[in-house]
Amino acid sequence: MFVHRRDVQIQWGDCDPANIVYYPRYFEMFDDSTSIMFEAAGFSKQDIVRKYGLVGIPMVDTRAKFYIPSTHGDWITIESRVESFKRSSFEVTHKVYKGERLAIEAFETRVLVGHDPADPARLKSAPVPEEIVEKFLKG
Amino acid sequence: MFVHRRDVQIQWGDCDPANIVYYPRYFEMFDDSTSIMFEAAGFSKQDIVRKYGLVGIPMVDTRAKFYIPSTHGDWITIESRVESFKRSSFEVTHKVYKGERLAIEAFETRVLVGHDPADPARLKSAPVPEEIVEKFLKG
Amino acid sequence: MFVHRRDVQIQWGDCDPANIVYYPRYFEMFDDSTSIMFEAAGFSKQDIVRKYGLVGIPMVDTRAKFYIPSTHGDWITIESRVESFKRSSFEVTHKVYKGERLAIEAFETRVLVGHDPADPARLKSAPVPEEIVEKFLKG
Amino acid sequence: MFVHRRDVQIQWGDCDPANIVYYPRYFEMFDDSTSIMFEAAGFSKQDIVRKYGLVGIPMVDTRAKFYIPSTHGDWITIESRVESFKRSSFEVTHKVYKGERLAIEAFETRVLVGHDPADPARLKSAPVPEEIVEKFLKG
Repeated sequence: MFVHRRDVQIQWGDCDPANIVYYPRYFEMFDDSTSIMFEAAGFSKQDIVRKYGLVGIPMVDTRAKFYIPSTHGDWITIESRVESFKRSSFEVTHKVYKGERLAIEAFETRVLVGHDPADPARLKSAPVPEEIVEKFLKG
Repeated sequence: MFVHRRDVQIQWGDCDPANIVYYPRYFEMFDDSTSIMFEAAGFSKQDIVRKYGLVGIPMVDTRAKFYIPSTHGDWITIESRVESFKRSSFEVTHKVYKGERLAIEAFETRVLVGHDPADPARLKSAPVPEEIVEKFLKG
Repeated sequence: MFVHRRDVQIQWGDCDPANIVYYPRYFEMFDDSTSIMFEAAGFSKQDIVRKYGLVGIPMVDTRAKFYIPSTHGDWITIESRVESFKRSSFEVTHKVYKGERLAIEAFETRVLVGHDPADPARLKSAPVPEEIVEKFLKG
Repeated sequence: MFVHRRDVQIQWGDCDPANIVYYPRYFEMFDDSTSIMFEAAGFSKQDIVRKYGLVGIPMVDTRAKFYIPSTHGDWITIESRVESFKRSSFEVTHKVYKGERLAIEAFETRVLVGHDPADPARLKSAPVPEEIVEKFLKG
């Protein structure tokens, strides 16, 4: 499976009065990581939206377990991978490391959505394009 | 158990290019809801931090399942409750309703932390004050 | 001129390690205030976008001067008003009060934009609808 | 004067329903840029806070003019520099480039604050350390 790693430095504005990362910021980082992983695989969100007529890839279900806090100035490594594909959804896991230590584990299930042809104002799930599945399964 | 409800209007800046709420914003709303619920129970975060010498009440584990999307202008109701207390942690659930429909279900486990007396630079779990447990169990 | 006031409670996640509001959060509050003021005047962003074929009302120029800090739990009052209209832009000021004291002064210039008929992928300024000008000048 | 440049890729979550950056995100990027510039000069925020007993470097006055919008996937270059120092404050400018084109101009005035010795609960301006002034004026 395709694995993507990136290093992120925690910034002042990511942190709360306890001087640790305000946890919703991690979900922003994970959302960025999924997009960046897709872009690294050749499927930027701009391309996906245009090429396949999608509206977005919204979150269906996400969970995160926080083991070790971080503060501004700290560097973390976010390791992301697509775990599985279904017809119009897929699962991603993110592991955050501080050095060697596992700091956070997260998973997410996302679904591809486009406009419903019968009612363009409504969203409707769309199949994961075959070339994306292939790239991630082989990559 | 103490139940807290509040109405929130989704704003333009909560939404992403798919014109639906960017999901990390929901975690911000849930974090606010937990604080506001505690304040409504008589325990504002300012008071808790000062009175019990806490640093914060960080997230240990959180999950959210998204059933119905919302966009700017929409009103949602966030219904929050403390489900259980342990020695230094507690569980909260949040249910988001759009009218009668359940739009999101979330849970969170948080832990109370203070400074470690042996090393003030380190965080250490702290017991949930008895009066908080009592208020929520009775409320 | 139409004046809009709303009370906002600063939340934990609005604050940074200095235990005061992380200033980009104020710009989010001001953006919300402008939208809410328009909605109060009868022109919700959803309506504006649909009715006039707009894409949005992006910021052209904004400034804020911060006099008094706030922290979580504090209540502030944001007083907003449209100061003037031009063909396709308008100016808004926001004054933030903590009790009687002026805590922040901000101004913003925004422009209405729609799709360029000659190239729908491009944005193009759009005239402020006459009924909006009238409502704010009379209101 | 010390000049700092960094490349930033706009992410999906930075953008609003108009598919362009929600402008408060730029202020987050500018805040990050100032911190990263200081760190590059040898003065990380963690160090500054610890070494000089500061609480933070809050914003006093900031302005941004937006000329060219950006969307997710776009790369921008943020060029930051300290323009001047006063006793306990300093001015920074940020210029955002998309390729060769100037997309945004921003300035900010910040002040160093520590605890008031007469009342540790209050904030008080603190002098800019001489070594910081020297580094930036020479750098």
